[in-house]
Amino acid sequence: MKVNNPVIKDLLRHYRKISLLSKTKAVLDWDLNVNLPTKAAEGRSHQTAHLAELITDLWLDEKFRNQLDKASLLSSKASKEEQAIVRNLNFAGKYYFNVPKELIVEKEKVASAAFMAWKEAKEKNDFSIFLPHLKELIRLDQMIASHLKFDKNPYDALLDQFEPELTAEKAKIVFDAIKPDLIKLVKRIQKSKNYSSSSAFVDEQILYPKQEQELLLKSIMRRMGYDFAAGRVDVSPHPFTTTLDRHDVRITTMYIDNDFRTSYTSTMHETGHALYEQGINPEYSETPLEGGVSFGIHEALSRFWENMVGKNPAFISFMTPLFQSFYPEQLNALNEWELSRVVNLVKPSFVRIEADEVTYSLHIILRFEIENALFNNEIKPEDLPKVWREKSREYFGIEPKNDSEGVLQDVHWAYGAFGYFPAYALGNLYGAQFLRTMKKDIDFDAELNKGNLLPIKGWLDQNIHRHGSLYSPDELVKLVTGEKLNPKYFINYLTDKYTKLYEL
Amino acid sequence: MKVNNPVIKDLLRHYRKISLLSKTKAVLDWDLNVNLPTKAAEGRSHQTAHLAELITDLWLDEKFRNQLDKASLLSSKASKEEQAIVRNLNFAGKYYFNVPKELIVEKEKVASAAFMAWKEAKEKNDFSIFLPHLKELIRLDQMIASHLKFDKNPYDALLDQFEPELTAEKAKIVFDAIKPDLIKLVKRIQKSKNYSSSSAFVDEQILYPKQEQELLLKSIMRRMGYDFAAGRVDVSPHPFTTTLDRHDVRITTMYIDNDFRTSYTSTMHETGHALYEQGINPEYSETPLEGGVSFGIHEALSRFWENMVGKNPAFISFMTPLFQSFYPEQLNALNEWELSRVVNLVKPSFVRIEADEVTYSLHIILRFEIENALFNNEIKPEDLPKVWREKSREYFGIEPKNDSEGVLQDVHWAYGAFGYFPAYALGNLYGAQFLRTMKKDIDFDAELNKGNLLPIKGWLDQNIHRHGSLYSPDELVKLVTGEKLNPKYFINYLTDKYTKLYEL
Repeated sequence: MKVNNPVIKDLLRHYRKISLLSKTKAVLDWDLNVNLPTKAAEGRSHQTAHLAELITDLWLDEKFRNQLDKASLLSSKASKEEQAIVRNLNFAGKYYFNVPKELIVEKEKVASAAFMAWKEAKEKNDFSIFLPHLKELIRLDQMIASHLKFDKNPYDALLDQFEPELTAEKAKIVFDAIKPDLIKLVKRIQKSKNYSSSSAFVDEQILYPKQEQELLLKSIMRRMGYDFAAGRVDVSPHPFTTTLDRHDVRITTMYIDNDFRTSYTSTMHETGHALYEQGINPEYSETPLEGGVSFGIHEALSRFWENMVGKNPAFISFMTPLFQSFYPEQLNALNEWELSRVVNLVKPSFVRIEADEVTYSLHIILRFEIENALFNNEIKPEDLPKVWREKSREYFGIEPKNDSEGVLQDVHWAYGAFGYFPAYALGNLYGAQFLRTMKKDIDFDAELNKGNLLPIKGWLDQNIHRHGSLYSPDELVKLVTGEKLNPKYFINYLTDKYTKLYEL
Repeated sequence: MKVNNPVIKDLLRHYRKISLLSKTKAVLDWDLNVNLPTKAAEGRSHQTAHLAELITDLWLDEKFRNQLDKASLLSSKASKEEQAIVRNLNFAGKYYFNVPKELIVEKEKVASAAFMAWKEAKEKNDFSIFLPHLKELIRLDQMIASHLKFDKNPYDALLDQFEPELTAEKAKIVFDAIKPDLIKLVKRIQKSKNYSSSSAFVDEQILYPKQEQELLLKSIMRRMGYDFAAGRVDVSPHPFTTTLDRHDVRITTMYIDNDFRTSYTSTMHETGHALYEQGINPEYSETPLEGGVSFGIHEALSRFWENMVGKNPAFISFMTPLFQSFYPEQLNALNEWELSRVVNLVKPSFVRIEADEVTYSLHIILRFEIENALFNNEIKPEDLPKVWREKSREYFGIEPKNDSEGVLQDVHWAYGAFGYFPAYALGNLYGAQFLRTMKKDIDFDAELNKGNLLPIKGWLDQNIHRHGSLYSPDELVKLVTGEKLNPKYFINYLTDKYTKLYEL
C-alpha cells in the first residue's frame, strides 16, 4: 500500500498503536475465555480496563483528531485506500469523539451490574430483577444515540455502530420483504411427510464422543483451507473467532455429547470468520484497513460456510461416508438425504442460537422490531415479556413457557448492545447474493459434491477477503454482485433448497 | 497495607500502571511459549515491543522520578513498607534511570542478532560464528555497567541487576568456601559401590507414557498445596513459571519419553516458584512489594522443593508405591533406596540444566569465574572455549567434546544476560540455610516420609512467601534464620545426604 500524503502517514503511525493495543487486549480476552483460572477474573479485569483506557486516550488524542479533521477535507483527491483510511478512522472513532467520556464510563458500570442482574433473572426466571437495569441501559443508549446524531430515528444511531450506514428504514424494507415468505416456508416444511422422521431422529439420545468430533472438525477446517500455522482451535463455552494478528486468527468451538451437529456447524461458522481474516491483504495489517468490512459482512461469510456449504445437501452427500466412518453405530442407518434433513432440520424453537436456517431470520426480525419500537417509545420496557410472547406466536406458532426462554434468552441487551442483531440477518441476505454471483464462476454443487472447498475459498479470497475493510458494505456488495442488496436472492435460495430437501 | 504519605500514594498509583502493563506483557509471553502459531512470531513481537516501550516511558516519566527522589529523602521516617516501596522502585528503575535509552535499544538489537548467531553457532558447533556478537555484547554491557556505577569491579553492577547488593567479592567468598568440598564429594560418590548400578539403570531406554507423567505431576502439585483455581499447568519446550496476577500463577512443564525424572523434578521446581507467588500478602498485589525478593531467593525456594523435598530419600520412600503404581513394569524392580539413587544420580556431565544437585553449583561457579574474569579483562572472549575446557577438566574431571556442549551450551550470554548465573547457586545456599531453620519447627523427614507437604508450605507461607519483596535478600535471610548467609549449611546438607544415600 502506497501512501504519500504526510497527514495520512501520521494517522497510520498513530492508528498502529491503537491496533497493537487492541490486539493485545484481544489476547487477554481470548485467554479469559479459554484458559483463565477461576480466581483470576478480578485481576484480569484490571489489566483489560487499563488497556481500554489507553486505547480511549489514543482515540481522544488532540493532535490525532486535528490531523484526522484535516485529512477528512483532503480526501476527495486521495487514492481509494487513503479515502478508506480516513472513512474507517472517522467511523471507528465516532463513538469516542461524540460520546462524553463520563457517559462511556457510566454505561460500562451500568452494563456490568446489568449483566449480573440478567444472569440472576434468567436463572430465577424473573424479568423484574432485570427490568430496572434494562430501563437504565435504554436511557443511557438514548443519550448515546443523541450524541452520535441521527436524522429521524434514534435507533439509526445504534444500528450504524454495528453496520455502517444501516438505518431502521432500510432494515425494515428488507425484513418486511422476507418475513411472510419465511413464515409460509416454515409451515410448509412442518407439514411435509419427511419432517417427522428427521425430527424424531434428532430427539433420540445418541452419544457422539468428543474425540471423534475433534478429529472430524479439524479435517474439515483443513479442507476449507484454514491455515493452522496462522491460528489455532480451542474450546470455550461460547464459540468465537478472534484476530490476534494477521497470522494468528484463532477460533473456538464447543462439543455437545448428544449432538454432533453443534461442533460441526459452529466450527464451519467460526472458520468462515477466520478465513476472512486470514485472507486479507497483508499490507493492510496494523492499518485502519485491517479486519473485515462490518459485522454484517462477517456474518455473511460465516453463515455462508455454515449453511450454504456445510448444510448443502451436495456437501452432506460427500460427507456421509466420513460421518459414518467416525460414527458408524450412530449414523449408519441414515442415507445421505436423511442425514441432510437431520443437519437441516427446521424446527421452530424459542432459542435463537439453536435456530435453523429458515427460522433464524425470524428470530432476528422479532428482536429488530422490538428494539425499534423501544427506542421510538412505542412500547415500554415493562411490556417486553408480553410483546415477546405475542410475536413468538405470530412468527413461530409457539409461545415460550417462561421469560428465561423468551425475553431473557439473549445476553446482548444485558451488555447494552442494542442494534447488534440486525447484522446477523443481513449476513444471510448478503451471503445468498454472494452465492448467486459465485455460481456464475464455479460449478458450486458439483464441487461440494466432490468435497472441493478450496475453489470456494479461492473465490472469496479474490473477491471479498483480500479487500479487508477497503470498501463500505454497500460498496462491496455492489462491487462483488453488480447490484445493491436484494433480499429476493435469500428467499429464492431458501425456497429452492427446502423444496428439494423436504420434497415439498 | 496502610500508606499515609501522599507522595508514596502517588508513587503507588503510577507503579500500578507499570504493574498492569507488565502483567499484560507476561500474558503475551506466556501465550508465545505455550500457544503461538508458527507464523505469528513477527506480529506478536510488534505487540510486545510496543508494551515494552510504554513500560519504559512510565519508568522515565519525569513527574514520577521527581516524586521518587522526594520520597527517597523522606523515607527514613517512613514505615517499613513505605521504605521498601521506595527501595524497590529505585532498584527496579535503576536500569531505566541510568542507562541512556539509545544504549538500551542498541543492546536489544545486538542481542536479537546475537541470539540467532548463537543458535547457528551451536547447531554448527562453530564458536567463531558467535564470537563477534559476544564481543559486542560484552562491550555494551561494559558501557551499561559504567552507567549503573560500581565501586571496584564492573561485574558488580551486572550482578546487582539480578541479585540486589550481590558483589563479585561476596560471591567469590561463598563459592570458594564450597568448591573444594563439592569436587571432593563428587569423587567420593563416583567411587561408591552403589554408583554404577543406578547409573546403568538411568542409561536403559525405558519408556514412561506422557499421560501417566501428567497425572502424577498434578497429584504432586495438589499435595504441595498449589491452588489450581489460581493458576494452571501447560507444556512448553523450556519449563517456566509466570505471574499473570496474584491469582493467576502459571507453570509449564515438559515430558521426556524415556525419563520420568525430568517432568517430576521440573514440576516440583516450577511449583516451588508458584507457591511463593501464590503465597504473597494479597495487599501487596499491583504494588512494588509484589513478587519475590530476588532471583536468588526465588531459586532458593524452587530448588528447595525440587531437591530438598522432591529428591529427599524420605519422600522418595513415600513416593515409591505411587511411582510403581503409575509405572509398574518400568519401576517395580527397584526398592526405595535404589529409586532414591536413580532420582539423585550424581553424574558429571557437560550440561548445566541436566546437572544433579552436587555438580550443579560447580557449573555455576565455572560460569561465575569466567564472567568475572571477562569483565575485568583477565581473559579475552576468543579464549573462552579453551578456558571452558580447562575448568571443566578441573571441576568435573571431563572435557566437553566440542563447543556446542561447552561454551555454547547456555542461552544466557546470547541474550546479553551476564551476571545472572550466580543467583542459581546462591539459591542452593539460601535453601539449605532455610531448611536448617525449618527443621527446628517441623519434623521434616518424618513429614516427608508420610507424604505431608502442607506443613512445609505453611511454614514457607508464614516465614517467607507472605512477605513478598518487603525485605532485601540479606534482611530476609537474617530474619528467617537469625544469621547472614553461611555456605557451610549447604555443604553439610549435601555431605549428610549423599553419605547416607550412597553409603559412603
